[in-house]
Amino acid sequence: MNDIDVLVSEVGPRDGLQSIDATMPTDVKVAWIRAQAAAGCREIEVGSFVPPSILPQMADTADVVREALTIEGLTVAVLVPNLRGAENAIAAGAHKISIPFSVSETHSLRNLRRSHEQVIDEVRGIAALVAAQKTPPHFEAGLSTAFGCSLEGPVSEDVVVRSAERLIEAGAAEVGLSDTTGYANPVQVKRLIRRVQAAVGKKHITGVHLHNTRGLGLANALAALEEGITTIDSSLGGIGGCPFAPGASGNIVTEDLVFMLEAMGLKTGIDIDRLIAVRDIVRAALPNEPLYGFIPEAGLPKGF
Amino acid sequence: MNDIDVLVSEVGPRDGLQSIDATMPTDVKVAWIRAQAAAGCREIEVGSFVPPSILPQMADTADVVREALTIEGLTVAVLVPNLRGAENAIAAGAHKISIPFSVSETHSLRNLRRSHEQVIDEVRGIAALVAAQKTPPHFEAGLSTAFGCSLEGPVSEDVVVRSAERLIEAGAAEVGLSDTTGYANPVQVKRLIRRVQAAVGKKHITGVHLHNTRGLGLANALAALEEGITTIDSSLGGIGGCPFAPGASGNIVTEDLVFMLEAMGLKTGIDIDRLIAVRDIVRAALPNEPLYGFIPEAGLPKGF
Repeated sequence: MNDIDVLVSEVGPRDGLQSIDATMPTDVKVAWIRAQAAAGCREIEVGSFVPPSILPQMADTADVVREALTIEGLTVAVLVPNLRGAENAIAAGAHKISIPFSVSETHSLRNLRRSHEQVIDEVRGIAALVAAQKTPPHFEAGLSTAFGCSLEGPVSEDVVVRSAERLIEAGAAEVGLSDTTGYANPVQVKRLIRRVQAAVGKKHITGVHLHNTRGLGLANALAALEEGITTIDSSLGGIGGCPFAPGASGNIVTEDLVFMLEAMGLKTGIDIDRLIAVRDIVRAALPNEPLYGFIPEAGLPKGF
Repeated sequence: MNDIDVLVSEVGPRDGLQSIDATMPTDVKVAWIRAQAAAGCREIEVGSFVPPSILPQMADTADVVREALTIEGLTVAVLVPNLRGAENAIAAGAHKISIPFSVSETHSLRNLRRSHEQVIDEVRGIAALVAAQKTPPHFEAGLSTAFGCSLEGPVSEDVVVRSAERLIEAGAAEVGLSDTTGYANPVQVKRLIRRVQAAVGKKHITGVHLHNTRGLGLANALAALEEGITTIDSSLGGIGGCPFAPGASGNIVTEDLVFMLEAMGLKTGIDIDRLIAVRDIVRAALPNEPLYGFIPEAGLPKGF
C-alpha cells in the first residue's frame, strides 16, 4: 500500500462467477486474473473453497490459486465457508482468506446453514490453523447483511458491533462490513464504521464490500473513504452480487470505482484503459452476461 | 423549506423533454407536473422560453406555466436563454427563472451563440426587469460546464469563481454549479462549492445540477450536501441531459436521489412510491424513451 492510497480488491472471479450458472474454464479465469493484475490490480479474490456439489463454478479454485500465485505482486484472496475450506485454501497457498459471518441469523441459517455460534466456532478453528502456519495467510471475517437483510429487514447495529468484537476475539485479524443486500446509505455507512472502529480498533477494520443494487454504491464508498477505510471491494463489469434487474447490478463496478478514486486524486495503481480492456476477456467467455458500468460507455473526461 | 431538509428540484419537463425529439402534448406535461407535485415535489422546472424554431418541444411553455401556477405550494421554475425569454417568463408568471452561463466560452459560443460579455449583459437586463416587478421572481444563473467541458477539457476554477462573482454583481440573486458534462468528482465538487461560497457568500449559492454520465451523480450529490448545499436538481427516470449510452443517463434520477436522501434521514417531502408511479405517465407518453433508475427496479429495502 506504500505507493497507492486505496486498495481496490477485485471480487469478480469469485463473487461474480459464483452467481452465474455458466462455468468459466480455468484458463479463461487465469487469463482474466493475469490481465487485471497487469492493469494494476493488487488484490483479486480468485475463487472460493466450497464443495463442488454446491458451487461447481468454483471447483477449480485450487488450480486458479496456484496459477495466480505466479503473478508478481498480486495478493491472492479466496473465500471459505468453514474450517475445511480454510484447510484447502492454506494447502493451495492463498495469501488471504475470508469467511462470511451473516449478522442476520436468519440469513446465516439459510445461506450457510449455521447459527452465529457455529460460525464463531469455525473462526476459532481457522484462527488456530492460521497461527500454526510458517507463513500465515491474512484471515478476515466479512460481516454480511451488516446494513440490513432482505429476510429480517433492519439489522441491529448493536449486533453488528458485538459480532465484530466476537470475531476479533475468536481470532480473525480483521472484520469487514458487507452491504450484501444493497440497503446501505452514506449516513449509516459512516456511523457503523465509526462504531466498529471504536469497538475493535481501526487497524481491525480497513475494508468494505458494498453493493450498487439501489444505485448508492459509489456514494457509500465515498462515505467509507471519509471514515478512513482503505480497501474497497468491487467487481469488473459489476457482475455478481445477485442483480435484481437490468442496470441494477449487485456489486460496485470496478471501472467506475477506479475512475472515482483516481478523479479524486487517490492513487489506485490501476490503469483505467487497460482495466476496461479486460472486459473483452469476460465478454467473450460469458456472451450472455450483461456487463455494467458508466465509464466504459461514456469514456474518460477530455484531458483526464 | 421549513419542513424539509433538501429541496429536490425536478428538471425533467424542461431538461428531459428538450433533449427528446418527440414533443409531449401540453395536457400530458401538465398531468406529469400535477402528479409529481402531488407526490410531494416542491419545485419543478416546467419548460424553457426559447424560440419555438429552436426547440419546438418547449413551444407551449407559457401554457404549461399557467397550468402549473394553479398547483398549491409548487414553485414553478423555467429556463430562459436571454432577456426576451425572461420577459415571456415574467408575463406567464413563473416563480423562478434561470439563465445558463457557460464557464467554457467555447461551449457558450457554440450553444448559446454568445460570449461571456454578452451573457452578462443579458443578466443585467433581466435583473433590472425582475427588480421592476411588483412580485419579482427568483432569478438565478447556472454555471454550466463548471466541472469541465467536453470541448475545452478542464475548466479553470478561477474562471468559475470569477464568473460567479460577475453574475452576482450583474444582479443574479443566486448562482448554481452545473456539471453539464458529467465530469465532476466529489473532491472537486467540495472544493469548488467552498471557493464559490467564499467568493459570493453562502446564501448566493444553494443549489447544484449534477449529471450521472459517469456514474458519480449521487456521490457528487453527497459531497455537495456535506458542503451545505440544500437544492439538488434531478430528472424523473433520469431522462434528458444528453445520455451517452444505455444505462448511462445524463441527469441524476429523481427516484434514486430521493431514496438516498430519505434513507440518510433527510426530509424531502416526497413519497417515493407515489413518485415511482409518475413514471407511468411518462412511459405511456414516450414509449421509446428509456427510463433509468435503480430504486424503481430493485424496490425499497424491507422495513424502509
